Amino acid sequence: MTTGKINVSVENIFPLIKKFLYSDHEIFLRELISNGTDATLKLKHLTSIGEAKVEYGNPIIEVKIDKEGKKLHIIDQGLGMTADEVEKYINQVAFSGAEEFLDKYKDSAKDSGIIGHFGLGFYSAFMVAEKVEIITKSFKDEPAAHWTCDGSPEFTLEPADKTTRGTEIILHIAEDSLEFLEESKINQLLNKYNKFMPIPIKFGTKTEKIEQKKGEEVAPEDKEETFKSVEVDNIINNPNPAWTKQPTELSDEDYKNFYHELYPMQFEEPLFHIHLNVDYPFNLTGILYFPKLGSDLQIQKDKIQLYQNQVYVTDNVEGIVPEFLMMLKGVVDSPDIPLNVSRSGLQADTAVKKISNYITRKVADKLKSLFNENREDFEKKWNDIKIVLEYGMLSEDKFYEKSSAFVLYPTVDDKFYTLEELKEKLAANQTDKDGKLVVLYAGSKEAQHSYIEIAKEKGYEVLLLDSPIISHLIQKIEGDNSGMTFVRVDSDHIDNLIKKEETTISKLSEEEQTNLKTVLETIVPKQNYSVQLEAMDSQAAPFIITQPEFMRRMKEMSQSGGGGGMFGMGNMPEMYNLVVNTNSDLATTILNNKDKDAQESLVKQALDLAKLSQNLLKGEALTAFVKRSFEMIK
Amino acid sequence: MTTGKINVSVENIFPLIKKFLYSDHEIFLRELISNGTDATLKLKHLTSIGEAKVEYGNPIIEVKIDKEGKKLHIIDQGLGMTADEVEKYINQVAFSGAEEFLDKYKDSAKDSGIIGHFGLGFYSAFMVAEKVEIITKSFKDEPAAHWTCDGSPEFTLEPADKTTRGTEIILHIAEDSLEFLEESKINQLLNKYNKFMPIPIKFGTKTEKIEQKKGEEVAPEDKEETFKSVEVDNIINNPNPAWTKQPTELSDEDYKNFYHELYPMQFEEPLFHIHLNVDYPFNLTGILYFPKLGSDLQIQKDKIQLYQNQVYVTDNVEGIVPEFLMMLKGVVDSPDIPLNVSRSGLQADTAVKKISNYITRKVADKLKSLFNENREDFEKKWNDIKIVLEYGMLSEDKFYEKSSAFVLYPTVDDKFYTLEELKEKLAANQTDKDGKLVVLYAGSKEAQHSYIEIAKEKGYEVLLLDSPIISHLIQKIEGDNSGMTFVRVDSDHIDNLIKKEETTISKLSEEEQTNLKTVLETIVPKQNYSVQLEAMDSQAAPFIITQPEFMRRMKEMSQSGGGGGMFGMGNMPEMYNLVVNTNSDLATTILNNKDKDAQESLVKQALDLAKLSQNLLKGEALTAFVKRSFEMIK
Repeated sequence: MTTGKINVSVENIFPLIKKFLYSDHEIFLRELISNGTDATLKLKHLTSIGEAKVEYGNPIIEVKIDKEGKKLHIIDQGLGMTADEVEKYINQVAFSGAEEFLDKYKDSAKDSGIIGHFGLGFYSAFMVAEKVEIITKSFKDEPAAHWTCDGSPEFTLEPADKTTRGTEIILHIAEDSLEFLEESKINQLLNKYNKFMPIPIKFGTKTEKIEQKKGEEVAPEDKEETFKSVEVDNIINNPNPAWTKQPTELSDEDYKNFYHELYPMQFEEPLFHIHLNVDYPFNLTGILYFPKLGSDLQIQKDKIQLYQNQVYVTDNVEGIVPEFLMMLKGVVDSPDIPLNVSRSGLQADTAVKKISNYITRKVADKLKSLFNENREDFEKKWNDIKIVLEYGMLSEDKFYEKSSAFVLYPTVDDKFYTLEELKEKLAANQTDKDGKLVVLYAGSKEAQHSYIEIAKEKGYEVLLLDSPIISHLIQKIEGDNSGMTFVRVDSDHIDNLIKKEETTISKLSEEEQTNLKTVLETIVPKQNYSVQLEAMDSQAAPFIITQPEFMRRMKEMSQSGGGGGMFGMGNMPEMYNLVVNTNSDLATTILNNKDKDAQESLVKQALDLAKLSQNLLKGEALTAFVKRSFEMIK
Repeated sequence: MTTGKINVSVENIFPLIKKFLYSDHEIFLRELISNGTDATLKLKHLTSIGEAKVEYGNPIIEVKIDKEGKKLHIIDQGLGMTADEVEKYINQVAFSGAEEFLDKYKDSAKDSGIIGHFGLGFYSAFMVAEKVEIITKSFKDEPAAHWTCDGSPEFTLEPADKTTRGTEIILHIAEDSLEFLEESKINQLLNKYNKFMPIPIKFGTKTEKIEQKKGEEVAPEDKEETFKSVEVDNIINNPNPAWTKQPTELSDEDYKNFYHELYPMQFEEPLFHIHLNVDYPFNLTGILYFPKLGSDLQIQKDKIQLYQNQVYVTDNVEGIVPEFLMMLKGVVDSPDIPLNVSRSGLQADTAVKKISNYITRKVADKLKSLFNENREDFEKKWNDIKIVLEYGMLSEDKFYEKSSAFVLYPTVDDKFYTLEELKEKLAANQTDKDGKLVVLYAGSKEAQHSYIEIAKEKGYEVLLLDSPIISHLIQKIEGDNSGMTFVRVDSDHIDNLIKKEETTISKLSEEEQTNLKTVLETIVPKQNYSVQLEAMDSQAAPFIITQPEFMRRMKEMSQSGGGGGMFGMGNMPEMYNLVVNTNSDLATTILNNKDKDAQESLVKQALDLAKLSQNLLKGEALTAFVKRSFEMIK
């Protein structure tokens, strides 16, 4: 038996690093700036604990393009490296200086914000550069070092004459990566990955007008010249983004400003924010915003962004943020989220599950407090947030349990009830003779206008429930609240929707009713309508078309998908009831009309009118109706 | 100056490999089966050129779960390894035996289908296993070897007693990866990644009934027992999928069968297929299908799949397949597509651009030949394919150029014209007095029914253009065909849409017209309607509502996005024209009615009827109209 150690040769690993260390080559810049940031934060820590006896100052990181020389420079003012340290940290692939540092200074450096993990970031430079130079001067009193490598992987190391503290990385950009010498490209990358990193990043210069000093004389004709232009450092990042601060330090205005900083193309104000801040059992900060769900396009573009120690990672927060909150916007920053894990792995990861649960709970708590603190304002925002909340009620049991404290049921008259309030409000008038509490609702104020009017005339409340997933939600609420039933206003004649003891007496005798039904059934198309005679108030509409609640709801559930409903019901033909009021004058007129043709056109016209109210008169039938009606008035 | 070589230590690299070699841990199985496939294909090649003096036979790859032992076995019958070869290929991370083989046998092995690239695949085993064993016996006359490694990364190597040729990999599955001991999970992975790999893969057993041999006596009462059950090898893959064959070998039925093999949950038949097959300047095979675009859900799930040498890679074909063809289904197999390249890199890659262009051209050629070979059938399929083609015309210039040979313009009467045919057909009757060819179209047969009828009464053809992006396409076609203009049938009164020399004389005098206009303008709400008097046929509708083409089209373009239109126009209020026929009886009746109230209700009723035809009478106004109309007939 032989034993031994598996071997890895740099000649084999180097081409791999160049080719597919990361699937996005552009992240090399994020990695190098992260290294510069770590070098600076380490120096900050060492000066703070007195181990480095130098002035920390106000270090920045500079990015410079040398287009002619085909070079990109990344310069930091951090702790730098001695020649020995270059040997140790650079010439050894995948040796993480950051891990070593955090290990050494575990207690004091816990919250220092140091980013590095795997010690691979530096090598990502070779994805875009054919040659890389490092010129570095340590904060220690040792000569500067100059390291050069063309990725062969041979390197040279020699003394350098750099006198200022810090590290300069020079990338000799490869021919197939020349895009990284474009100012616009670098700007775009810095804006994407480094916008909120903790050390100021300088890129390019900008010209600013500054006011002339007070003492100087200014001739009146020079008034427009009291400003002079100077070139100033162009710091492209905000090292202290709102989510890193305490909620107590921030005003509503600050939160709004940060929203626009995060999404410069977003002009709408957010409805409200939720500040996330937890230390244990995982570390997570962030701010989530409920956006105004106006333009669908923007929703898809401006997603929640995931950061780790202020470094942008991705805007794919699947698994981390519960699905129903994906439509929210904002930032989540956590060093505790595993990044290279499959989707199923993420779902199984208990740390991630805890994060997701924490976010759900925080959102529910915030909604509850918004509701309690200013109900009027909450009601105003309801239409913009309901779709998220309703989806949450259906998909997250924990959220559903908490939702009764703030979820609202609006009426067509813009009143808003909680479920408990609704039960109380409807108890007296909308409990039917079997003791069932009947909740009437409409899907659209416009399309069901005439039905809503009929219900309101009876003194009933009508909810306006117009979300696409409402059928599923109603089904769930009915299941959890026995004795409560939801019916849409157009699902039957109103006296059948809420059955009371009293019955209206029919003007027509049994025989007359049978005759009327026979007449109607010969004229009204059987395949779409069943005729249903009802003794109603004589002033009520003579003909109305209804569609039974159960069938319609099952169809809707089957069409909007996601379980529930019945298989194949989405494709069933539409069936309606034609409810004819036997106490209406029209019913008598039809019954007594002895001219068969006149009787038929009367029924047809009445059916057309009923169809109009249910938005069922279309195309050729509508054209004929309009033409006929013009004839009648000319 | 020092020089040296960058160093990489296996202790640093190993944790990286375990943690994030691939973002999906599950691909370990694909990698190990690919290795087994390569080992088998290499043996096949060596026997074919006489270098291996053994019988190739019918080798398979077997996958076995040992749930109790927490082990997963992958066993091939390929060329195997000697102890020396294990040292060389396994103990050296990222040394690719496949590359070496292809290098050595470049001329003869070019089309052998060998998969390996980087020599990393084997190590992916450590993403899910805490210990890995290899038991392998070379086809050469040397003893078998047994290699074991717990990822420390120490290994042991000793002789083994395996006597059959090939390699067995044993994974001792780690505690956090026990899902990979579930039969259903392994089945799912094999089905996803290995379904069309070239060597038969055996997993699990299945019981099959086989017919009793002819000679045996079977008593009549045993008739149902003429079959007996036996366990047979359960081969889970199809080693010779349709796309690897020549089009001449395949019938229409074969193509359809392969479609269902690819998408077992897809019940609809594809409309037609396009077989891709190119050797130079890149290697690509595949079959694309035009699906019936019925259920939206299925569209998103069953995507085009990308393979490399019959190994499934991804169903994200962005950049490779032109965007407008993303809705197609099928398979693309090419070893020439760079996989770990960023999106922008992919777009810049010339090989990828060539592939994308090739696919566009092949699709256009196929459409042209389908149109030429069986126009009737092509017309029947038009509604299912038009959205893809129209989007292609807008997004790919090369496709647009070729599209005139097969793109159709259907009429409301289900006639289909090419653009050239349309021009010819309309020239005589639909050229206006300024020489412009006016193409009338409708967006919906139902919603614009009355307007379509009016146009047809004039003998005009009306196209039915109902795609969501049609405004953009019309705009483009008008730009490229001067003298041609598209107007929707409801964008003006018909005599204004196609202006001819003859004019209808108005029954009303100038003064009467002024009076009528004054009356109408006091009653008709100004903010939504401008009154437009027209001398039309006395039998034509007295009131119609129109909406000017330009405004409506710009609004639509702005709403459907993607350039064109005018900024902010999507939110402009709807403005309509109320066209009043001065020659209608109703116009005279209104003008002569001296009772102000009666006059007003007449105008209002007429306006309501016009609104009905344009689907503008809704909500409260509709309820009032219906109530009023019931009153009129009771």
